[in-house]
Amino acid sequence: RLCRQSGSTGSLAVKLSTAAEVKTSTAKNGDKVLNLGNMNPQVRAVEYAVRGPIVARASEIEKELQQGVQKPFTEVIRANIGDSHAMGQQPITFLRQVVALCTYPELFEYSHFPADAKRRAQCILMDCGGKSLGSYSVSQGLDCIRHDVARYIETRDGGVPVNPDNIYLTTGASDGITTIMKLLVSGEGTMRTGVMIPIPQYPLYSAVISELGAVQVNYYLNEENYWALDKDELRRSFNAARNYCNPKALCIINPGNPTGQVQSRKCIEDVIHFAYEEKLFLLADEVYQENIYSEGCEFHSFKKVLYEMGLEYSSTVELASFHSTSKGYMGECGYRGGYMEVINLDPEVKVQLEKLLSVRLCPPVSGQVAMDVVVNPPKPDEESHETFMKEKKIVLSNLAEKAKLTEEVLNTVPGMKCNPLQGAMYAFPRIFIPPNAIQEAKAQAMAPDMFYCMSLLEETGICVVPGSGFGQKEGTHHFRMTILLPVEKLKVLLQNVKDFHIKFLQKYA
Amino acid sequence: RLCRQSGSTGSLAVKLSTAAEVKTSTAKNGDKVLNLGNMNPQVRAVEYAVRGPIVARASEIEKELQQGVQKPFTEVIRANIGDSHAMGQQPITFLRQVVALCTYPELFEYSHFPADAKRRAQCILMDCGGKSLGSYSVSQGLDCIRHDVARYIETRDGGVPVNPDNIYLTTGASDGITTIMKLLVSGEGTMRTGVMIPIPQYPLYSAVISELGAVQVNYYLNEENYWALDKDELRRSFNAARNYCNPKALCIINPGNPTGQVQSRKCIEDVIHFAYEEKLFLLADEVYQENIYSEGCEFHSFKKVLYEMGLEYSSTVELASFHSTSKGYMGECGYRGGYMEVINLDPEVKVQLEKLLSVRLCPPVSGQVAMDVVVNPPKPDEESHETFMKEKKIVLSNLAEKAKLTEEVLNTVPGMKCNPLQGAMYAFPRIFIPPNAIQEAKAQAMAPDMFYCMSLLEETGICVVPGSGFGQKEGTHHFRMTILLPVEKLKVLLQNVKDFHIKFLQKYA
Repeated sequence: RLCRQSGSTGSLAVKLSTAAEVKTSTAKNGDKVLNLGNMNPQVRAVEYAVRGPIVARASEIEKELQQGVQKPFTEVIRANIGDSHAMGQQPITFLRQVVALCTYPELFEYSHFPADAKRRAQCILMDCGGKSLGSYSVSQGLDCIRHDVARYIETRDGGVPVNPDNIYLTTGASDGITTIMKLLVSGEGTMRTGVMIPIPQYPLYSAVISELGAVQVNYYLNEENYWALDKDELRRSFNAARNYCNPKALCIINPGNPTGQVQSRKCIEDVIHFAYEEKLFLLADEVYQENIYSEGCEFHSFKKVLYEMGLEYSSTVELASFHSTSKGYMGECGYRGGYMEVINLDPEVKVQLEKLLSVRLCPPVSGQVAMDVVVNPPKPDEESHETFMKEKKIVLSNLAEKAKLTEEVLNTVPGMKCNPLQGAMYAFPRIFIPPNAIQEAKAQAMAPDMFYCMSLLEETGICVVPGSGFGQKEGTHHFRMTILLPVEKLKVLLQNVKDFHIKFLQKYA
Repeated sequence: RLCRQSGSTGSLAVKLSTAAEVKTSTAKNGDKVLNLGNMNPQVRAVEYAVRGPIVARASEIEKELQQGVQKPFTEVIRANIGDSHAMGQQPITFLRQVVALCTYPELFEYSHFPADAKRRAQCILMDCGGKSLGSYSVSQGLDCIRHDVARYIETRDGGVPVNPDNIYLTTGASDGITTIMKLLVSGEGTMRTGVMIPIPQYPLYSAVISELGAVQVNYYLNEENYWALDKDELRRSFNAARNYCNPKALCIINPGNPTGQVQSRKCIEDVIHFAYEEKLFLLADEVYQENIYSEGCEFHSFKKVLYEMGLEYSSTVELASFHSTSKGYMGECGYRGGYMEVINLDPEVKVQLEKLLSVRLCPPVSGQVAMDVVVNPPKPDEESHETFMKEKKIVLSNLAEKAKLTEEVLNTVPGMKCNPLQGAMYAFPRIFIPPNAIQEAKAQAMAPDMFYCMSLLEETGICVVPGSGFGQKEGTHHFRMTILLPVEKLKVLLQNVKDFHIKFLQKYA
């Protein structure tokens, strides 16, 4: 059922090894109730490169290092995933204080904790059953937090109205995206729901599309124009898709992951206009909305632009926007907090959405609390404001510095070309892979950039994700690396990448 | 695709109202991209009574009370969901101390916290990236916690070996159950995967089966024999199912939800033998394993019995067992913590399972920490042991008292019959509904027990869940209520239920 457009290479290596496994399976494990041959084929089709074979190998290498195996490096550096705290970023104090107070209310008597943290925790606990973080919340998320989210969005968007009833707290943004996709998928054959996603994309999208048996419809971002989204390409992709599916949803990631571009207001308007004309449900992945670095770039939310386009648009276009505790300057990935705002949803579908959410009971309540602090940090007249501002500034200015540094260094490498990191947390440089290396990759049944990244890992300990895991134009190669290491370590990493690349070019010249 | 056996009435009310909605939808919202008519039909087929229309009405009534609307009661009592803390149960101190320390490590310097809580928190943080709860954990869950789970199971089962690699931390038990079901579903038409579930069941099962488009295969528990699982009924159900699907999985809930029975060792052996013979994948929902009240009843895990049956069974039968932070005596629902142990899984399917889990990144890390304390509470030689034992005893002895009280009082009500609450947290009494009331329910397009529960809610403020939401033998009616209220309040509630029932019988005599 899953129909990929040609030109979007998934991870070749994964596909080949799966094919090999099937054979073994039939021979060895045919007597299992559940085996590779009879399991859910949609789940089997799922690929997720960010934690794929390259990361499995990284873990193995770490174990080998522990066992004293000699390597040309002493530690594995995980630049594969946007996991700020793991790279040494410190938590925002106020967030942790509020969560700690909610967790263990005896701390209210502890003078160490500032009054604003106590007020906030008090307020949240009042909304919890039995005043305990251990109670289920309502499925949609705690009322007081959804109201804080609503106020955040209203302020962010210059007063555009927000209905807290349209806010749903989620288990990270991934959960929200999956839930909306679940609602959208229906039909058989050429009437099967098509979901338009950017290429390169964050592989959650392709994974969920596989899992749900929807049809992945690729539109290509323009690498030559800073990974901008092009209206004509959107149209081309949509028209082509109508021949083999029913394109019903359009996903946008802004700022881009893995590509780091920040969409212009004009471009967002174009996308909304297109969705309006072609009757597409919009999914706006805006988890990097606080991560903007380049001068002249600004974050425009789809919601705001939609409202500025007038009632004809703002009263009709169906839009879900996603945010998360994991990114921004808080970087609290482990809490699995997030929210989505869903507007213009058919009221009857809203009932269905709420029913679906209720089956999983509620998002983790401590993640909800973390989300509250993300959208409602200390205000200028509050006790924790000064510390908070200092902490926030350190994280964001560091990220901006590292974004610039990464772009600059990578562009000094021969056979490497990196677009500006306008936002988000990643570089996605294009890499030249010599024909001899492509040969060698084929011989080892790997995608060329998987082969490249595996070599990088084996020789330097640096773990990055091959571009094929995100999708890329046929014949081009990339990798994604995070910019989350402390500046000094990042400098070393970039130098190591550079040295490796030069050696790689020589080896396969 | 979803094929229910006749005799399992779903919620009639929900079905009827859905049919009505479709009509309106086509008229009003046909212009929506996503509407009731074109949304995912599998999601639309989902029903989840525990948070269904009755709970929505309870929320409305709460708002009416706040607005000063006069009612024959002053508060809504939510006896619909196993949410211990919301009903006033206090958290276990040690659990919250460990979570607070992990959240805000500055607390390590605070003398209020006992040394064992600090040791535990230290140990967990060492396993977190950047020693922060804000990092993603590995998808399978933190290593140190999975090892604690393994030791817990080994001790519980008298030394049966546990491989920590078979332990997966989850976002509550629901998440684990859903994940395993996802792997199992495949095939079309009469080869579609059938999943055997008890009737009455916890409606997560039917909901996930709907969502995945699997086939629900009902086997009926024997109400006349304390809701015991009957081997012959299992066989009948399986044989019937083979005519319309490919039954591949067998779900057991022990102790039972909503039925509260504790399975005998002999019965578990029968089930395992049956699964072995018929090649069924076993899903053992054992989240109430600590909640055993009746004398002579004992919890036997499927894992333990499987191993006691000898190598022929223990080396072949594929079994997933689920546990949770939400039940037991800790009752930490809001943390969404859980684990599953999966044994005899095809190694190639294991790879697929781990890939699938990696897409959602990781379970909430604070929920993982809560799970750690559930499986590894303070030991006799540790600082917190005395307090812990006192707290644990209070909760469990209270629950045992309330289980007995509830059974006794409900059995004094004319036209009501309640099996012993051997375990779990619910009473599921059978209720006689007079023909006149059944007439009236039909006139209002409701299932008879939905009508009964709605009347109970409107007249007393007590919110319970109709038996039709769990499934029941045709022509019988029940409701599920929790026994979590404090003893004195529970007494009042039971008296109110009794008074209501007697009046109801008179009214519709």
